[in-house]
Amino acid sequence: MSEYTAPRQDGGRIQFRGEVMTQSAVNERVLNADLGQYEGKEVRLRGFVYTRRDLGGVQFLVLRDRSGIAQVVLSGAHLPLPESSVEVVGKVVRQAKAPGGFEVQAADLHILSAATEPPPVELPKVEWNANPETLLDYRYVTIRGLKDRAALKVQAVLVNAFREALLAQDFTEIFTPKIVSAGAEGGANLFEIDYFGRRAYLAQSPQLYKQIMVGVFERVFEVAPVYRAEEHATSRHLNEYLSLDVELGFVQSEDDVMDVEEQVLQHIVARLGEQCSGELAAFGAALPAFSGRIPRIPLMEARRIVTERYGHQIGGKDLDPEAERLFSQFVKDEFGSDFVFVTKYPRTARPFYAYFEEDGLTRSFDLLFRGIEITSGGQRIHDLDMLRRSLRERGMSEEGFEGYLEVFKHGMPPHGGFAIGAERLTARILGIANVRFARAFPRDRHRLTP
Amino acid sequence: MSEYTAPRQDGGRIQFRGEVMTQSAVNERVLNADLGQYEGKEVRLRGFVYTRRDLGGVQFLVLRDRSGIAQVVLSGAHLPLPESSVEVVGKVVRQAKAPGGFEVQAADLHILSAATEPPPVELPKVEWNANPETLLDYRYVTIRGLKDRAALKVQAVLVNAFREALLAQDFTEIFTPKIVSAGAEGGANLFEIDYFGRRAYLAQSPQLYKQIMVGVFERVFEVAPVYRAEEHATSRHLNEYLSLDVELGFVQSEDDVMDVEEQVLQHIVARLGEQCSGELAAFGAALPAFSGRIPRIPLMEARRIVTERYGHQIGGKDLDPEAERLFSQFVKDEFGSDFVFVTKYPRTARPFYAYFEEDGLTRSFDLLFRGIEITSGGQRIHDLDMLRRSLRERGMSEEGFEGYLEVFKHGMPPHGGFAIGAERLTARILGIANVRFARAFPRDRHRLTP
Repeated sequence: MSEYTAPRQDGGRIQFRGEVMTQSAVNERVLNADLGQYEGKEVRLRGFVYTRRDLGGVQFLVLRDRSGIAQVVLSGAHLPLPESSVEVVGKVVRQAKAPGGFEVQAADLHILSAATEPPPVELPKVEWNANPETLLDYRYVTIRGLKDRAALKVQAVLVNAFREALLAQDFTEIFTPKIVSAGAEGGANLFEIDYFGRRAYLAQSPQLYKQIMVGVFERVFEVAPVYRAEEHATSRHLNEYLSLDVELGFVQSEDDVMDVEEQVLQHIVARLGEQCSGELAAFGAALPAFSGRIPRIPLMEARRIVTERYGHQIGGKDLDPEAERLFSQFVKDEFGSDFVFVTKYPRTARPFYAYFEEDGLTRSFDLLFRGIEITSGGQRIHDLDMLRRSLRERGMSEEGFEGYLEVFKHGMPPHGGFAIGAERLTARILGIANVRFARAFPRDRHRLTP
Repeated sequence: MSEYTAPRQDGGRIQFRGEVMTQSAVNERVLNADLGQYEGKEVRLRGFVYTRRDLGGVQFLVLRDRSGIAQVVLSGAHLPLPESSVEVVGKVVRQAKAPGGFEVQAADLHILSAATEPPPVELPKVEWNANPETLLDYRYVTIRGLKDRAALKVQAVLVNAFREALLAQDFTEIFTPKIVSAGAEGGANLFEIDYFGRRAYLAQSPQLYKQIMVGVFERVFEVAPVYRAEEHATSRHLNEYLSLDVELGFVQSEDDVMDVEEQVLQHIVARLGEQCSGELAAFGAALPAFSGRIPRIPLMEARRIVTERYGHQIGGKDLDPEAERLFSQFVKDEFGSDFVFVTKYPRTARPFYAYFEEDGLTRSFDLLFRGIEITSGGQRIHDLDMLRRSLRERGMSEEGFEGYLEVFKHGMPPHGGFAIGAERLTARILGIANVRFARAFPRDRHRLTP
């Protein structure tokens, strides 16, 4: 019956854009990062023209592939526009000045796909002359630059480490709806959808759904986009971002939740150290300092410290951005930690579902990382009567929350959780000032493309 | 400085709902599935009341936790409503008739969170008397049933195996926008969003974005929801579903793409065998049959076989659902495979970006699994002129595709990819007739809650 299976070998001939190339003895493609293993041998490279220089009879090409860059020296070749996809077959020679210490000497190159115009900015020089809006307008090609892509690689590694740490602790991954009938925290800042003529919204958070799923799997996580229709356009907000959500049942207090987040962050830092040293170096970024345990300090204490030590007066109930920065500095100096949990927020500073004590404080926390909040979390109310009381005491009506309340008729165990904003964490790790550059295709107040 | 870290031990006292329990020597909670390791010892269990029976002086309780169920025998206890969260401390005794071969004998139980009403259906008996619409209306509690949750567990394992297989082959995970300015395949079936007064849409697929990302990382994947505003309400369609997307560059043909999908599916089947034997058993489902390679059979050949062997006449250019079923049967009988690639679809049956040959066929494929299509894929057009020709020959205008075309000015390498619908694959593995039950909270034409 094998006549039905398609032939796997096609006689060693590859056809690209009408041009037929005969495969030589050098069949397998080699990645740029592996050149050192092939000194003196002939290799086949594929990738993109990152930079090119023609010195008359000799041409220099920096080829970029998924593993990194390599220098190629050619003679008599016609070099295509930057970002063209090419294939080169040549000999690997030791060359101290070349990236990685080796270069490839080749006669010619095959164009796999020619760029028809150069990129709007010189990708290798982006940091010297970058206009952020231009970079975002042409993001579909500017993200090819080594530094921009490094940020996205760090994010991919970080997200995978998040999942690894939770799977190892018996958490189950969930996939909850992003089209919802109501907001989790009231009606503000929701994007509206036309759902077959009915009004629906984009989910601001998987809050209720992850709570429900505690009743199913006890310990759950989700990695998915969330949406905030916030008008403000700051360097730390996105209208669509990736939320790393966790929720677990049978907790005794918010300390159990912080324990899990601590383990998750520790694993993320470890994985970044193992897999992203090059990416961190591209930003001149140090691995986050992680001093064993993350300090847990009550909000009132944090406010006192900021005022007494730094003379910074804070309005409101929370920490303002400057206070977050100062307090993080304090923690770094005193504990050697880039992370700090600020705990025990007053009820007025937290949503209605936060578990509260009679002293008016909640079993909640924020996580500050290098001066910016990247997580909110805490224990949730699991008791229906307490939940109703919380709404009542805030002057909120049960209207619109009927579906939410219904769930709590079915024996929800004590539970809590947290969420990490993936782009904020990435940006903060790498020292990226504008969080847009920690997302492949950011959406903001004014930006809907690319 | 340790005065700032919150106390980790609170004197062995746990407070739930005002009730203070003293922790005994039995400190750590034990999972139901691990009871056999504690024969003759005292253990602490936590979980949900799955079933309860009171025989006067003796009460029988089946306790459900994330690991499975356990039988608990009590005396003189008052059993709370089903789905209440409880804690039990008791002695593990061998009992042949109990699930797992052990039961726990306890004096009493602590209620952690009392259900205030019973679930609308008896969860352990759902399959005997289930009305699908009722089950979906009360999904927030019906998914706690062992069989419903097993489907979601299988999906979680399957999705993780998908990622594992790709990460092992140097793919990078990407996160692309779900709020888009235009549809990837024209304007049909798009959900519309009010984006700060502008019209935007929910992404039907990450098609263009994953192609762009080939220029960045060469080999990419994404796990994310996609949206189809299709009016029809069938048992195989969802309006929001989880798409497992893959795209890779520097391919020679669609065979390279099928090679990757083959490896991914092989790993998924292996992981399900290792991690989900109980879940498969709950559905009486066999692991998908995977006979080494997946047969690759051209569409025209498949149509001929269905007509000649089974006398089934097919209209249109594709296979109809009955033809898909018959052809899958043929492949199972002849090759012992539950999977088959149907290849070389005519241009008219594929989107404009499918790479085509001069004979009018495309380098494309569908993957059928047990009689249903779970994947579309193929090589894409990477050349700008060919892409323009494709639009022109279809009578399509370049208007609305300017952003798409722009990307191909920058040397896109030959590339291709595929997408797997996670819920369809899950449903088909387990023999779930209605794909809604392979999603935690399905969205369809009429369903927006829970």
